[in-house]
Amino acid sequence: MDGLGYEMKHYWWVNHSQTFQQEIMGQYLWSPKTEAHGVRSHFYENMCSAVPGDLVLSFANTKITYVGVVLDFAISAPKPSEFGSAGANWSNEGWLLPVTWTRLETAVSPAGLINDLRPVLPSKYSPIHPLTGRGNQKAYLSEVDRRVVELMIPNKLLETLSMMEVEKAAEPRFAAIVEQLDDAVEASINSDTSLADSERSQVIQARRGQGAFRQNVVDIEHSCRLTGVTNRSLLIASHIKPWRSCANSRERLDGHNGLLLAPHVDLLFDRGLISFSDDGGVLLSHHLQRDDLERLGLQQAVMQSTGVLRPEQREYMRYHRSNVYLRTSVK
Amino acid sequence: MDGLGYEMKHYWWVNHSQTFQQEIMGQYLWSPKTEAHGVRSHFYENMCSAVPGDLVLSFANTKITYVGVVLDFAISAPKPSEFGSAGANWSNEGWLLPVTWTRLETAVSPAGLINDLRPVLPSKYSPIHPLTGRGNQKAYLSEVDRRVVELMIPNKLLETLSMMEVEKAAEPRFAAIVEQLDDAVEASINSDTSLADSERSQVIQARRGQGAFRQNVVDIEHSCRLTGVTNRSLLIASHIKPWRSCANSRERLDGHNGLLLAPHVDLLFDRGLISFSDDGGVLLSHHLQRDDLERLGLQQAVMQSTGVLRPEQREYMRYHRSNVYLRTSVK
Repeated sequence: MDGLGYEMKHYWWVNHSQTFQQEIMGQYLWSPKTEAHGVRSHFYENMCSAVPGDLVLSFANTKITYVGVVLDFAISAPKPSEFGSAGANWSNEGWLLPVTWTRLETAVSPAGLINDLRPVLPSKYSPIHPLTGRGNQKAYLSEVDRRVVELMIPNKLLETLSMMEVEKAAEPRFAAIVEQLDDAVEASINSDTSLADSERSQVIQARRGQGAFRQNVVDIEHSCRLTGVTNRSLLIASHIKPWRSCANSRERLDGHNGLLLAPHVDLLFDRGLISFSDDGGVLLSHHLQRDDLERLGLQQAVMQSTGVLRPEQREYMRYHRSNVYLRTSVK
Repeated sequence: MDGLGYEMKHYWWVNHSQTFQQEIMGQYLWSPKTEAHGVRSHFYENMCSAVPGDLVLSFANTKITYVGVVLDFAISAPKPSEFGSAGANWSNEGWLLPVTWTRLETAVSPAGLINDLRPVLPSKYSPIHPLTGRGNQKAYLSEVDRRVVELMIPNKLLETLSMMEVEKAAEPRFAAIVEQLDDAVEASINSDTSLADSERSQVIQARRGQGAFRQNVVDIEHSCRLTGVTNRSLLIASHIKPWRSCANSRERLDGHNGLLLAPHVDLLFDRGLISFSDDGGVLLSHHLQRDDLERLGLQQAVMQSTGVLRPEQREYMRYHRSNVYLRTSVK
């Protein structure tokens, strides 16, 4: 805390393109994970660096009209259907960042303040051109200095937003959003007439780690890789590549696409706060706090290898590492 | 293991009454929790002493026709609707014990073997009369000596059943049964025209610990009582009196009917493997193995008081202790 009475971890600036209205109405940001042909994008990777409580300036049509607060970590999610034909060239799987937006009483034009902004804009990855104040077409989510925000947003509003204590909010958005995504997939499976009834039923049971999928996982994995729990009553059959992201029934039922995990380990893995390397080492997201790990009693466990992954598991784990795991850019 | 090549933890004998067919077809046993007026029943309390892998002799119409293997611990569940008018005098909430049944090639009449059975029948709580071999009308689930079983069931079948390794079965029945029960409650809530749409939506969100219910819990509880985790992203809002057992929307949404628990603690609490005394002490079911507790990193935590429960929480916790917690009879 300083004299201004607020302090957020990061300040972000998003350059909306065609999907401005959808993102504001839907209370989120959505981006592909990479540029075309898998080229890495600093602006897209920033989606995974945002944490609950961060502030976001929304820039569209030459103006900042909304300011938002991040509600949860980024979630791997398909391109929202409300985008319609907008962003038709984007990949279908991307990062969804839950944000709650507030409309400014008076929209602000950065171009009009460019002389004040210029000295505090980032020298690399700036969201706007430091001479003209016009948007950087390549930018999506950029990190900016707090002084950039202070120049454009009334101090009183900033204080109010920082008081939201989003980190302590009752309800992180993850569970609700994933349930919505899963429901949509389940509806499409239910209406897929190419599936036999028995297969459809198995695929739907697999959503909650039950039925044939669980049986298939148990044939391969015998205990929780972190805690060593072997008692089946205490273990969850967890998809490595999420059920909602699987390409077809084969992936949804494949025993190699699963791990048996104790419930707290399952949550960390689903949430992308941990992942595994091919040799079974545990990867920790920077978003996973050391004291949380300690309270969960997992601090020792994450130091050890959990046993080499089978070749068939590795493909799924590669998906988890690039699409679920919250690998944050190192500053 | 002994010379006979099998060994189960317990051997049980159930005296079915009017609901024989339903229990065999449905792959379970079901009993009320107490006699009328809340009088404790040794035979009903035995339902909570059965563990996965135990053997059950099914006695009905003077004969043993089926033998079963217990698939999971007892689950608090309403009287099955397929009972119809049978057992109309039983309370609506009881214990459901998942059992997989095998029909004997030849039904066995205990009365015909009574001279052999007499010396090995239990002296107290015997399922049949030791002189006549006729069923004890008061008995439901009785524990019997292994020799009782050996006198009536072919040795080869016993070996086969003991090979089922149910304790290591892929899928304990708890999750699937609770989901079915919850689905039935959700369907009845959806068709309850006395509820306003907004209330209905809140009550259904509460099933998964989301929405208004979670908000209400967060107003009262601030961290996991066992692990001390405070990070909301890692905490589940868990009903004390289960959502499916609540009498009405008020109970389903009441913040005093909830705890914030880390996911592994939530599973133990839901499953009845732990409960809490009014002063916040942790109660451990005999079914919870010491090495599982250790692997989950909870061995220290369960020794401590977690803080006195509020008076409003105590009523719900009393329900949990008598209806969910697997308090096993001391032998």
